[in-house]
Amino acid sequence: MGSENCECKHKGSCNNENGKCSCQTQKDNSGSKPEGVKCANCKARDSRSSEKPSFTSESYPSLKRDPRYATLSQKDIDFFKGALAKDGGSIVTDIDESSDPSELDAFNIDWTHKYRGKSRLVIKPKTTEQVSQILKYCNSRRLAVVPQGGNTGFVGGSIPVFDEIIINLGLMNHIHGFDELTGILNLDAGVILEDADNYLVSKDHIFPLDIGARKSCQVGGCASTSAGGLRLMRYGNLHGNIIGMEAVLPDGTILNNLVKVREGYLGIITRLSVVCPQKPRSTNAAFLGLPSYNNVLKAFSTAKFHLSEILSAFELMDNTSQIFMDSHSSIPRPIKDEYPFYVFIETQGSSSNHDHEKLCRVVEELKEQKLIGEGAIAKDDKQIDEFVLRRVKTAGCLQDVGSGIYKYDVSLPLDILFDLVYATKERLKDLNLIGDAPGQPVIDVVGFGHVGDGNLHMNVLSRKLEKKVEDALEPWVFAWVASHEGSISSEHGLGFLKKPYVGYSKTPEMISLMKTIKHVIDPNGIMLPYKYVG
Amino acid sequence: MGSENCECKHKGSCNNENGKCSCQTQKDNSGSKPEGVKCANCKARDSRSSEKPSFTSESYPSLKRDPRYATLSQKDIDFFKGALAKDGGSIVTDIDESSDPSELDAFNIDWTHKYRGKSRLVIKPKTTEQVSQILKYCNSRRLAVVPQGGNTGFVGGSIPVFDEIIINLGLMNHIHGFDELTGILNLDAGVILEDADNYLVSKDHIFPLDIGARKSCQVGGCASTSAGGLRLMRYGNLHGNIIGMEAVLPDGTILNNLVKVREGYLGIITRLSVVCPQKPRSTNAAFLGLPSYNNVLKAFSTAKFHLSEILSAFELMDNTSQIFMDSHSSIPRPIKDEYPFYVFIETQGSSSNHDHEKLCRVVEELKEQKLIGEGAIAKDDKQIDEFVLRRVKTAGCLQDVGSGIYKYDVSLPLDILFDLVYATKERLKDLNLIGDAPGQPVIDVVGFGHVGDGNLHMNVLSRKLEKKVEDALEPWVFAWVASHEGSISSEHGLGFLKKPYVGYSKTPEMISLMKTIKHVIDPNGIMLPYKYVG
Repeated sequence: MGSENCECKHKGSCNNENGKCSCQTQKDNSGSKPEGVKCANCKARDSRSSEKPSFTSESYPSLKRDPRYATLSQKDIDFFKGALAKDGGSIVTDIDESSDPSELDAFNIDWTHKYRGKSRLVIKPKTTEQVSQILKYCNSRRLAVVPQGGNTGFVGGSIPVFDEIIINLGLMNHIHGFDELTGILNLDAGVILEDADNYLVSKDHIFPLDIGARKSCQVGGCASTSAGGLRLMRYGNLHGNIIGMEAVLPDGTILNNLVKVREGYLGIITRLSVVCPQKPRSTNAAFLGLPSYNNVLKAFSTAKFHLSEILSAFELMDNTSQIFMDSHSSIPRPIKDEYPFYVFIETQGSSSNHDHEKLCRVVEELKEQKLIGEGAIAKDDKQIDEFVLRRVKTAGCLQDVGSGIYKYDVSLPLDILFDLVYATKERLKDLNLIGDAPGQPVIDVVGFGHVGDGNLHMNVLSRKLEKKVEDALEPWVFAWVASHEGSISSEHGLGFLKKPYVGYSKTPEMISLMKTIKHVIDPNGIMLPYKYVG
Repeated sequence: MGSENCECKHKGSCNNENGKCSCQTQKDNSGSKPEGVKCANCKARDSRSSEKPSFTSESYPSLKRDPRYATLSQKDIDFFKGALAKDGGSIVTDIDESSDPSELDAFNIDWTHKYRGKSRLVIKPKTTEQVSQILKYCNSRRLAVVPQGGNTGFVGGSIPVFDEIIINLGLMNHIHGFDELTGILNLDAGVILEDADNYLVSKDHIFPLDIGARKSCQVGGCASTSAGGLRLMRYGNLHGNIIGMEAVLPDGTILNNLVKVREGYLGIITRLSVVCPQKPRSTNAAFLGLPSYNNVLKAFSTAKFHLSEILSAFELMDNTSQIFMDSHSSIPRPIKDEYPFYVFIETQGSSSNHDHEKLCRVVEELKEQKLIGEGAIAKDDKQIDEFVLRRVKTAGCLQDVGSGIYKYDVSLPLDILFDLVYATKERLKDLNLIGDAPGQPVIDVVGFGHVGDGNLHMNVLSRKLEKKVEDALEPWVFAWVASHEGSISSEHGLGFLKKPYVGYSKTPEMISLMKTIKHVIDPNGIMLPYKYVG
């Protein structure tokens, strides 16, 4: 399976399918390092990734495998092999020794190295009918399953907790059609976001969503977790652009036209119809340095006012995150001096002259009003790329700072968005967990995110993952967010990480209704057990 | 209740609440005639409206009242009066003779005069808690209910079929708050669309939806029917802009955070949070005459390409509809000559110069390519209004042509969008139902709609409503749409009109799932009986 197309420096020695290698060694090929999953087979992994994380079941000993669920037998494997025989599809399993146990690691371990399941079977169907057959069988046999897309989430949603069967959508990656007049794209749920976008660009359109994990994440996963991403302000949320959906219920029923199947919790999304905007003929970018978060808010108002329909991104980064970017990436600093906050503004429109004129006016006005200390406008496409990468690569770069990272993705009212970072630092200081002294595991707390939709990514960088850090942060962070009228699920869903804390963002009535509907649609509870409200 | 604010020529003699009179006599006050419900109390109604339509139960004699449902008693009325006593709210009922039976007509009869219910009780709650108390009581007493917003739909969704209690949201019309930074508006479901928009305009924003019935329709109704409207291309669908919802389930449970409650079928939407765009600082408009539908499609491509982010409307009208506009309205013709098709293009953006330049370029290019016969660009705001009204008033104006109208609102693939009109005319000709001869009830078939989202409004204008016309059209129209990969529910829901034909747009598996969920949430079936898949 060695891939010719893989761009990492271990070309040939890695063997992810479809050339979708995404090991960290790609980071020096500027522009091609994804924030997604690690290549499980790359021989030259960094020291951290070569250490496998503990099993989730051992990290959370209070959690017990539910005895309702059956255990896999050779007979089951035979059934699944038979089901896939006709139209292709593949299986990774160590039960009949057809695969090496290490081949399962890429599917059992999440990319943040926080979760590790014990699944002994990965099924990669190629058709909706196969998904239907597989689920019908699992339902009748009471075999628990976990649907898996690109495995780029960080709430453990797509990783088994115990021995759930992984249904990986990676081979359902066909683009079925595109209507240039209406912009409607019809595609399998397993299509990689970047592949969909590249296809669309060739048709003078783009996908209405762009996120850091674009090289690895799948459109079905984006839909089921309601991913927001970088350009939500310009193209609206993905949910609003999905006009058709096909999904399979736990009993094997194939549904068409379904509006939403949350998180693979009620069913597996197999196919989507998405309205896609035209490819913008003009992209412009600016990078600002600001003295305070308050000024960030004022600059946001000014940018919204003048840029309006062409404003595609207004992204925040704090200074700490950018200091790490300086030392851990080769992407040049867009502005020289240090500021407490940086903002990346992007416009996308149909006239380069018009858009450039509008953007210059904004930067001028911000300077006149002394809201920014410095403001650079990208001179050419190369510099636009550098500005974009400076923001997009932040998440992946922070991953390399320590050996443990706690990531929180939350929505908060804009005026207090950054207060969570301050409050978290304060708490870790009070508990003597942050600093350079022995026994202080946390290196720093950084914040960045999408100002446009009030979405903050807070990363707690740690020398290693330690239970006492986790205990200091959870559920404290979720309680803080809930008490400040925020949402803890934001654009990444609840998954495993946030399951115990669903009460912080949903009322008891909502949870009760969700459980009722879950029970009707999945009476045997085979889909995504131990997660969400399951 | 005589309203000081009513703008119709019977000021004082009409008594709709809140000055929201919308009788047909307003049509000469240019710009203020809505397409919504008729004023039930206006003394000078046109001859057609003074004739009450037959009861739905008589027009559809095969439909029987479900004996599961209880019949209202004085004790029930007492309970409801008690429930409303504390926080206000009102009741219209002839059971205890507190209201004149004719007062119920405005709520029992739909504005197209196609449906008439026999409800003897309209409850107008003021708070979510009252809705909860009312539904809880109805559920325990097995009293069937129908939620009603502005009553501007034309599928009979908000009109009782038999004696269902009408829960009218009209008094839940409070705007709770607006955040200028994020554009998030928090408001009651019963707020009139135009009121929400006027409020927003004062804050330099607009509501992300605009439809012909803006003066009468309520935001909750727009949300529950997934209304699309005129500017979907620019601001996306309302659904995508709703970020929070409050709703009450049939058992009285109040839910927060709910994403979608379809058509008041699973619950009553009581409150919404909507992301609203900034008010565009520049609006421009063009009106085109085109020789063929094929040219309409080509012009659409050109407009999308050049106008991209500022294109807010691309609306189609056929010649027949505009001939009726000439004779039934005072809005001047934007272009002199007759063409088979007309298109209204609107742009909304932040720079008048930029937008005007782009629009002129489009019209020039369309002329050069000989795609249009004539193309007028509005010279000033007054002319923009005239162009807009020429399209927006089409639906209301057609209502005045005959005394019976059959309205179909369907989605179809763009390339065959208008074929439905041709096919329908052909069918009515074959059946000898269209023409001026005696026994030919149909005057004409016209089409107009939103090209941007493939949404066609087909109106069959008839001298009067006749069963043989309805039988010729239904289910034939729905079958035609389904067999051409269209959707019969489009932006107006299924309601009563399309209930028997749900199978034309939903698979048996979808219907079965919908019924299952319906049964779990509304085991007594009190919500919206006889409709949708209920």
